[in-house]
Amino acid sequence: MDELFDRLFPICRSITGPGLRETLSILSEYLPLEQLGEPTGSSVFDWTIPKEWRIREAWVKGPDGSTIIDFKKSNLHVLNYSIPVNRKMGLDELKEHLYSLPHMPEAIPYVTSYYKERWGFCLPHRQLEQLEPGTYHAYIDSELADGELNFGHAILPGESNKEILISTYVCHPSLANNELSGPVTAAFLYRRLAAWTKRRFTYRFVFVPETIGSITYLHRFGKHLKEKLHTGLVLTCLGGAQHRLSYKMSRRGNVPTDRLVQHLFRLQALQGDIRGFTPINGSDERQYCSPGFNLPVGQMSRMVYNCYPGYHNSFDTKETMTIEALQQSVDELEQLLRAIELDGYYVNQNPYGEVKLDKHDLYPDLNSPLNGVYSSNNVADNRVQLDRILVMLNYCDGEHSLLDIADKCGCSILQLEPIVRILKEKQLLQGPYLEPRNEMIE
Amino acid sequence: MDELFDRLFPICRSITGPGLRETLSILSEYLPLEQLGEPTGSSVFDWTIPKEWRIREAWVKGPDGSTIIDFKKSNLHVLNYSIPVNRKMGLDELKEHLYSLPHMPEAIPYVTSYYKERWGFCLPHRQLEQLEPGTYHAYIDSELADGELNFGHAILPGESNKEILISTYVCHPSLANNELSGPVTAAFLYRRLAAWTKRRFTYRFVFVPETIGSITYLHRFGKHLKEKLHTGLVLTCLGGAQHRLSYKMSRRGNVPTDRLVQHLFRLQALQGDIRGFTPINGSDERQYCSPGFNLPVGQMSRMVYNCYPGYHNSFDTKETMTIEALQQSVDELEQLLRAIELDGYYVNQNPYGEVKLDKHDLYPDLNSPLNGVYSSNNVADNRVQLDRILVMLNYCDGEHSLLDIADKCGCSILQLEPIVRILKEKQLLQGPYLEPRNEMIE
Amino acid sequence: MDELFDRLFPICRSITGPGLRETLSILSEYLPLEQLGEPTGSSVFDWTIPKEWRIREAWVKGPDGSTIIDFKKSNLHVLNYSIPVNRKMGLDELKEHLYSLPHMPEAIPYVTSYYKERWGFCLPHRQLEQLEPGTYHAYIDSELADGELNFGHAILPGESNKEILISTYVCHPSLANNELSGPVTAAFLYRRLAAWTKRRFTYRFVFVPETIGSITYLHRFGKHLKEKLHTGLVLTCLGGAQHRLSYKMSRRGNVPTDRLVQHLFRLQALQGDIRGFTPINGSDERQYCSPGFNLPVGQMSRMVYNCYPGYHNSFDTKETMTIEALQQSVDELEQLLRAIELDGYYVNQNPYGEVKLDKHDLYPDLNSPLNGVYSSNNVADNRVQLDRILVMLNYCDGEHSLLDIADKCGCSILQLEPIVRILKEKQLLQGPYLEPRNEMIE
Repeated sequence: MDELFDRLFPICRSITGPGLRETLSILSEYLPLEQLGEPTGSSVFDWTIPKEWRIREAWVKGPDGSTIIDFKKSNLHVLNYSIPVNRKMGLDELKEHLYSLPHMPEAIPYVTSYYKERWGFCLPHRQLEQLEPGTYHAYIDSELADGELNFGHAILPGESNKEILISTYVCHPSLANNELSGPVTAAFLYRRLAAWTKRRFTYRFVFVPETIGSITYLHRFGKHLKEKLHTGLVLTCLGGAQHRLSYKMSRRGNVPTDRLVQHLFRLQALQGDIRGFTPINGSDERQYCSPGFNLPVGQMSRMVYNCYPGYHNSFDTKETMTIEALQQSVDELEQLLRAIELDGYYVNQNPYGEVKLDKHDLYPDLNSPLNGVYSSNNVADNRVQLDRILVMLNYCDGEHSLLDIADKCGCSILQLEPIVRILKEKQLLQGPYLEPRNEMIE
Repeated sequence: MDELFDRLFPICRSITGPGLRETLSILSEYLPLEQLGEPTGSSVFDWTIPKEWRIREAWVKGPDGSTIIDFKKSNLHVLNYSIPVNRKMGLDELKEHLYSLPHMPEAIPYVTSYYKERWGFCLPHRQLEQLEPGTYHAYIDSELADGELNFGHAILPGESNKEILISTYVCHPSLANNELSGPVTAAFLYRRLAAWTKRRFTYRFVFVPETIGSITYLHRFGKHLKEKLHTGLVLTCLGGAQHRLSYKMSRRGNVPTDRLVQHLFRLQALQGDIRGFTPINGSDERQYCSPGFNLPVGQMSRMVYNCYPGYHNSFDTKETMTIEALQQSVDELEQLLRAIELDGYYVNQNPYGEVKLDKHDLYPDLNSPLNGVYSSNNVADNRVQLDRILVMLNYCDGEHSLLDIADKCGCSILQLEPIVRILKEKQLLQGPYLEPRNEMIE
Repeated sequence: MDELFDRLFPICRSITGPGLRETLSILSEYLPLEQLGEPTGSSVFDWTIPKEWRIREAWVKGPDGSTIIDFKKSNLHVLNYSIPVNRKMGLDELKEHLYSLPHMPEAIPYVTSYYKERWGFCLPHRQLEQLEPGTYHAYIDSELADGELNFGHAILPGESNKEILISTYVCHPSLANNELSGPVTAAFLYRRLAAWTKRRFTYRFVFVPETIGSITYLHRFGKHLKEKLHTGLVLTCLGGAQHRLSYKMSRRGNVPTDRLVQHLFRLQALQGDIRGFTPINGSDERQYCSPGFNLPVGQMSRMVYNCYPGYHNSFDTKETMTIEALQQSVDELEQLLRAIELDGYYVNQNPYGEVKLDKHDLYPDLNSPLNGVYSSNNVADNRVQLDRILVMLNYCDGEHSLLDIADKCGCSILQLEPIVRILKEKQLLQGPYLEPRNEMIE
């Protein structure tokens, strides 16, 4: 993870261009990414793919000829999508092209102008204030040229062709939490899932430029996703000292990730908080959840965009993000995906009266006020296993989901994994099925 | 309003008779009232139209020959629907025909006996207590004769033949809040709506005697209303120093007036309180909401019947009602009707991915941490317009009503009127439709 | 009741055998019980009917030859379903077959081993601790032999073939609250209902051994019950000083007993508390509510199993149970059943506009602010009757149940019994119907 992060961080990414392509190439070394592109000028719904932005060099020299701003030091110094310039001018004119943050005088802001032609430089406000009158030389060696918008995906097949989407974005330049945390976490989550011995669902990992990239992706694959998607997540801002996850609900509010994340947070199987869905801000879930698609996709974060000082400026570094936080994110996302794999509708194969559990070594064969701690002759666990088995067998009627049953048991769905395994081994249970089935009606 | 009130107040109204007809005639000068009637003896559901009551003169003379009670001074002095009498009698016998309010010794009560033949006089309790023994002369020159029950309505057409009902009643004699406030408010509300340049709905203004009048109206128009009524209101007791409206829910509890009034009260776009539906007391909504009709009709009041000292007695005067309160009622009812006109289901015309808002001058074309106050290049409103547009476009899927969306925006539906106008001008939105439509399904 | 209890208490019952048969025979003297049986070895769903247990004598003699444990003194002394033994042994070996309750040193526990062959004795822990080393003689004259599992039921017919189930169990030996309270209460409840002049529903009283008995009953009658059962109750633990009932919800959670018990408790027409459904513990409702049947059956108790010191030991006596508590249980269950008989969907026969109530002597014929206490000319009850009539007529639309309407009236459904009677006498109301009917749609 460390290595991947360090290779990606310095690259000057944008929504198009060589930096984006280089990023996708490096990611391809970590997971089998299929690389795709959409040419400049294509219509994607209400949008048009813009020209590709390429930049080679950019600086400002001061009245004394010294370089005072240099793209080589930080690619945030250039207004993203700047057109070329090579001109001397007075300080007043230059200032119309300079961007800074008065409330954070040491930070270089991240500013973009994708759809209106501009040039500009970003710098710390303290430096801006100290500029003396005189003649400055602004130089940007960039071009906007026909090309394509690049993106990629990797499909990890499972038993079912129903899919789980993991989507993240790769258009931000040298910013750590927002956004290298998403792509790095996604790449390592892929490797984790690839190592599973069995996957119920097919997993689709998507790496796109934000907004226009996911719109382009939907233009190409939206119909397929509408048909196949079981549930999904946008990954963004997964770093930070913040130990709690933060989940933004899908627009539908009751899709598998919504229900399972709420459940796991409530039962403290994972630590985290819930945000409601909103189209006002956020990331690509705004596109996946646009009304024409309304896909079952939520968003998982930790140190949320807009809520930390380094948001969209040069203070968003590896140090505040931390690789450990990404590691923890991979672990927690894997737990969530295990819960999604486990959930569904199970059916008790002996639904008429109680199952005779002692026959199956799942009940003590002596009934005394003293053996109240035994789940079976050999399991002395205060009857925890027995109680869960009784609840499972009663409610596995094809109409209650395992999540519903876990709530009835007062435990997390992950704690029912061993019960499911025992009951399936004893052939007392079938499932999981994706949809409810009224098995009990004669 | 003042003039209309002053012309109507002195008239001796009842559920039938010349006073009722005169009232409808005067109202006809203010709105184009079609006058209708149902003859004595007609069956209207479980009821029968009674004989018409006509009264010319009524008085009681005391032992000394002086007139101690006189219908000319207040028409409340006569038991409404009194049969004729012309007889001398002792105080004890007279007292069996006298009605007063011991707890309000100065007030003349309003008493009726429509369906059992009686005669009687109403007077202040203090006066009753001072009557000396002796011979009294009771005289009522009235008659019960075949005639008709009169009522009227005015239809104000709109784009749709779906109707909004405004119903009020015109059978109370000289009582101000209950009930001239309803008819006067209704008449001036009609004129307000008639001045609108555009009406989505057709408006039906109904003026009937209470209870038997609305039952008669339903007997004639109930089937039409069941088919055409979008929503409606009974107007009653709309005067009083009380600055808050008071809305009684319809029996169905989720009809357009119910939902919009609750919303406008909750968002404080209007000030008021909600009462639940009850068939126990109230006005003609009890008939409109009888189970066989169950029409989408609530009731709007201000100083509610039964809850103020002047209720059904001579203290219910113009001074406690005030013309200003009626004026305010017209204003507030107009707001409510504007909200009803505005509500419905709208459909985003570009539902796949976000709309490219800067194309439509609805988004700033520079993306910087510093321009967080701009809704577009020229609107610096802390993004209020932009946020509302984003929420509107996301939820205008034909399945969320504008009311639902206003609740999501945390603003009143009336505050979305300019957003609807902008988005319709830019051809980004269609609607309103009356019913949900699943436009997003391919 | 006293007599029935005293005859049943000493019998050594089990899930099969002569004690069970004797119990059913004695009950047959109190209600017309049809006795049924299922032979040893039959398969009933996942279970098999075991051999019959017969016991004649059992004792332990101490080193000095004196009898220290004797089945004649309490049938709890023998492990229920003990196989025969007749052997001398040291104290250590004997102790492997002795059961006591360390936390209740004076009580003899109730221990069973139906499905695994064992022999054993139960005794107070204090006595166990005082046993001296030496040679003991354990003697049990019992046998396990082919026979049958016995049970019985009595059907009390009503106007409809829809049934109400009252089920209780008869397999516990000398234990009072759990469980003679159920059978004794059921027998006397039967007699109470048999004395009703009219029963809307058919009543099915079932007496079975717990668990395997109800499973056997379901094997034979489950299909019939699925088709015919309106609602039902398992009766258990109905004794105790506890003045409040305790109701365990059915698995479905909204069946007639669930809704009516909650209502009667909420309105304090009965005193009691609600427990949620659980398959973890309880009685035969676990079988009736197994997922393949999912019958509308709750459970009524008072001093609930597991929650009192005498549970499953020799402290569960007539003194702690009390016959008075059973008497009260019969009274309260009769109230509940009256409510079930009364509930349903009624239909106002004049649903268009209000009924003209004075025509039916249900409204005062003078309308004055002073007669606000009159429901009709002769009923001065602060309008309670009138208010309830108005609410009834408005909501008796075939879609609101009488229970819904009682909640709207803020009174218990039993308090609406006189209103139903009046309105049916006046032919203003029809019903009750079992299912909603949309009578109001033309």
